[in-house]
Amino acid sequence: MARRRNPRDIEADDVVQAGWRIGPQMVRTPCLRSPALSALTGATVYLKLENMQTTGSFKERGALNRLLSLSAAECRHGVIAVSAGNHARAVAYHAKRLHIHATIVMPSTTPFAKVSNTEALGATVILFGTTLSQAARHARQLATEHNWSLIHPYDDPLVIAGQGTVALEMLSDLADLDYLLVPTGGGGLLAGMAIASKTLSPRTRVVGVQVATYPALHRWFHGHRKERRSLLAPETLAEGIAVKDPSPLTHRYIRRHVDDILLVSEDNIEDAVNLLLERQKVVAEGAGAASLAALRAHPTRFAGKRVGCVISGGNIDPRVLAETITRGLARTGRLSRLHLAVRDLPGSLAKITAIIAKMGANIVDVRHQRVFPIPRTRTELELDVATRDRRHAQRVVTALRRSGYSVQLQS
Amino acid sequence: MARRRNPRDIEADDVVQAGWRIGPQMVRTPCLRSPALSALTGATVYLKLENMQTTGSFKERGALNRLLSLSAAECRHGVIAVSAGNHARAVAYHAKRLHIHATIVMPSTTPFAKVSNTEALGATVILFGTTLSQAARHARQLATEHNWSLIHPYDDPLVIAGQGTVALEMLSDLADLDYLLVPTGGGGLLAGMAIASKTLSPRTRVVGVQVATYPALHRWFHGHRKERRSLLAPETLAEGIAVKDPSPLTHRYIRRHVDDILLVSEDNIEDAVNLLLERQKVVAEGAGAASLAALRAHPTRFAGKRVGCVISGGNIDPRVLAETITRGLARTGRLSRLHLAVRDLPGSLAKITAIIAKMGANIVDVRHQRVFPIPRTRTELELDVATRDRRHAQRVVTALRRSGYSVQLQS
Repeated sequence: MARRRNPRDIEADDVVQAGWRIGPQMVRTPCLRSPALSALTGATVYLKLENMQTTGSFKERGALNRLLSLSAAECRHGVIAVSAGNHARAVAYHAKRLHIHATIVMPSTTPFAKVSNTEALGATVILFGTTLSQAARHARQLATEHNWSLIHPYDDPLVIAGQGTVALEMLSDLADLDYLLVPTGGGGLLAGMAIASKTLSPRTRVVGVQVATYPALHRWFHGHRKERRSLLAPETLAEGIAVKDPSPLTHRYIRRHVDDILLVSEDNIEDAVNLLLERQKVVAEGAGAASLAALRAHPTRFAGKRVGCVISGGNIDPRVLAETITRGLARTGRLSRLHLAVRDLPGSLAKITAIIAKMGANIVDVRHQRVFPIPRTRTELELDVATRDRRHAQRVVTALRRSGYSVQLQS
Repeated sequence: MARRRNPRDIEADDVVQAGWRIGPQMVRTPCLRSPALSALTGATVYLKLENMQTTGSFKERGALNRLLSLSAAECRHGVIAVSAGNHARAVAYHAKRLHIHATIVMPSTTPFAKVSNTEALGATVILFGTTLSQAARHARQLATEHNWSLIHPYDDPLVIAGQGTVALEMLSDLADLDYLLVPTGGGGLLAGMAIASKTLSPRTRVVGVQVATYPALHRWFHGHRKERRSLLAPETLAEGIAVKDPSPLTHRYIRRHVDDILLVSEDNIEDAVNLLLERQKVVAEGAGAASLAALRAHPTRFAGKRVGCVISGGNIDPRVLAETITRGLARTGRLSRLHLAVRDLPGSLAKITAIIAKMGANIVDVRHQRVFPIPRTRTELELDVATRDRRHAQRVVTALRRSGYSVQLQS
């Protein structure tokens, strides 16, 4: 780059250069049509599977672009980053590959699975403070002390340019996209993709997606007042985009190039994680499923359009995943919980199970409760039953009631 | 094809023709390098994600090739197939697309999720008999009566040629593969891929994988005597390759072109399903994970080799998937069950949970049992605890024992 310009400026060229720089050292992730999700949403859906990067998210792109731009001296000194999630893995993995020493600071409340995942990738993990901002302050201090380069997850031109390469690959694999749908937390991915897309495919609209529990960028974009900042961090399945800190740098490019930012609910996110699992055979973390969640939450807007969805990451705790699947079955009526008040006599359970079997439903769990219910001659029976759908569950309830049982379907 | 030849003969040319025929009407599934699974197995692992076909498996290829070869009159009459699984979905989906009426015969014991999945794709489902062979006999009869074309899942040259197109795509995407690893039940996929591969890439070794509970092809290939055929169908997570019926047609090509057939255990299969979920963010059914299972079961054989693994399908029941994930956590020591005999006094649970918390483990379920244990002043406590790994679980047990508790770690 011979021309003089502000080093904080980012242009499509920087994204193209990042693509050349990082491409040979990364997985070229799949970009494919999904007939199943298209049929379900009414749009023509294409998925960019960034969850299939080696460490399970797009974050490698920005981190690697930054690492490959360090001077030899900076490489010798080492790098530091603050993250308990995908950015931590991305920095750890590529630093190790490039023989650069990496230190990752995480809040001391971080679950041990995340700590050990990052350590397994070769980084030194330091636990500090109870919030990300306390950890960040400590990291800045360590960076100064040890002369380590701080790799910010999004407030950095090289990181933003790196993330933008997702758009390069999508636009080279797919022609004539009407929309790019991009999960958005700090805004690095959204800004980078928008910078690239607006030059290379001006008519493609670039839309960010945020989860309603963390709407900072959405509020700012639509000119709403800032939320009063609470110290409590609400729980979300989409923790990858649960970001509160603004970044003037990403904001500038989002204002300039992004067409809209949409909100999705926690339910939308959970539903999208399950749809990706069942219909596309893909594991997405909550944040990674946000673009499909937006497609489902705003169906008329995207009907008939060619929509490229970034599935930005797949790092979901296996236990959370198993629970999400089971909750999804319950929500779609494929798993139903029945509460029955039953007379505590021999044969009661046999009669009830026979009725359920005759209705074609399958009992998967049985619990008896004899202490709290009143009157004393009755027992409470809780049955988990695999049913075809909600209508089927309702028919099972009706059949039991017809035989004289008092039944409640838990919903 | 002007030359005269036996219509049951299959050559690489037939596979190439099938590729041209079906390609435009199917998803081009991803074929990508997996650095994570490579690091884990010591091979250079490439995955062909056939689970990302619209109906979740490679079976569409053979079914579509057969459907596109029907005459106009045959199309008007309709088709019939016997399957409760991936072949049923494949025939139903593509027949509907091509406006061909499809009837699928399933044993009447088929779970309703499979029935409704196939019906949702537009086929008429007939439930008949208790086994697949009874259903097959009925289907042959219906085919004769109604002049329906029977679409066999593997004993058919057009179906075999269609399945072979998986190898075409892999060999065009990847150069110099040392091995193709192919999940194998009836042998259609294996035969088709071997026919294509031996012409187009003679030095690539083609290896089939069977699950030890259904080793028919493996026994035949290695010259072992046939197993005594039991009427009981053993349970397997890999039901997609749980095939007992031989096919002279696939056998002929497997004998001629296949280099080896390996066996994997149920544990290997479960482990591979979980690895694909966690490390590759991909949902594979049991059969679909067989090639990775073989890589894990025979590590020295494939070390340092370039291995193409077909992930043949992803249709796993969500409830089974959730259970498989949880079982995987238990097997890898990330979920541990502790049995404690505790004195039934106020404060017992508080003391125990404090010790566990101090050890950095996280209690996810608690059950008390007061009826059966003896002596009467004691209660049995069952705790499910999230631990880092088996060593960590063992350290938690040691800490509890040091404090005087009698603890068993369930394994």
